[in-house]
Amino acid sequence: MNDQVTFSVSEAEVRDTVSSWLAAVQAVDFDAIMSHYLPDVVAFDAASELRFQGKEAYRKQWEDCMTLCPGPMIFEVHDLNVTAGEEVAFAFFLTRCGGIDTETGEEKASWLRGTACYRKTGGRWLIAHEHFSAPFDMEGGKALLDLER
Amino acid sequence: MNDQVTFSVSEAEVRDTVSSWLAAVQAVDFDAIMSHYLPDVVAFDAASELRFQGKEAYRKQWEDCMTLCPGPMIFEVHDLNVTAGEEVAFAFFLTRCGGIDTETGEEKASWLRGTACYRKTGGRWLIAHEHFSAPFDMEGGKALLDLER
Repeated sequence: MNDQVTFSVSEAEVRDTVSSWLAAVQAVDFDAIMSHYLPDVVAFDAASELRFQGKEAYRKQWEDCMTLCPGPMIFEVHDLNVTAGEEVAFAFFLTRCGGIDTETGEEKASWLRGTACYRKTGGRWLIAHEHFSAPFDMEGGKALLDLER
Repeated sequence: MNDQVTFSVSEAEVRDTVSSWLAAVQAVDFDAIMSHYLPDVVAFDAASELRFQGKEAYRKQWEDCMTLCPGPMIFEVHDLNVTAGEEVAFAFFLTRCGGIDTETGEEKASWLRGTACYRKTGGRWLIAHEHFSAPFDMEGGKALLDLER
């Protein structure tokens, strides 16, 4: 016995897709990011609007969000969990997301939650639906951006 | 041609599961609600904490949330979208969620986003992962609870 975890072929493929998507996000490469989505993706993003319908609207939201984070960006994926069938899959994870103050070097990041849902299309796993969020405080209605993992 | 929409067998089964779950929520029947989840469900709920791991923790969260909404509850599912393979499926929707003031009769409800991810287990579609949220305002960090659908 060793502690190596083995995944099904589909699960390994979806994990590769998550890695490739994450690399694109970290590189702030919008074409590469958007290559992971189906044209009719419906996204529930962490900020601003209830939903974004279609790749064009969602790309604009990615661009707007990243413009708000100038300087070195923090975007990490933790506790990734993947379930994959033959044609349908989902992944969920926590993401540590924020930026670094270029003057003080201080990190300012929050934990968010992420869910990505995939349809295998033309041999590739593409995101049909994505959901990012922070929970809110029922009493004051503030987003809880300082929770610990 | 008529405008009747037909679904695959799996998709129809998942839609039935969503209906049964929704009826349980509307009846505030915690045993019936929880019968829709896998024991190791991981939930990202709209309020309070980053995540709830396992059925017991998530049931307590359902109970806590519903205690905060005394009187007639509003919990509706709109714009349901289901994708189902043989063993893995996902659904996403908007939910109108809130309560009715028993003195004034006034409805106080917000639009939230919901994603449910399923694994077919012993012939039944059960929720392995669920994600509810409201988006927040990037400027002030307030949950956006008054957005229109």
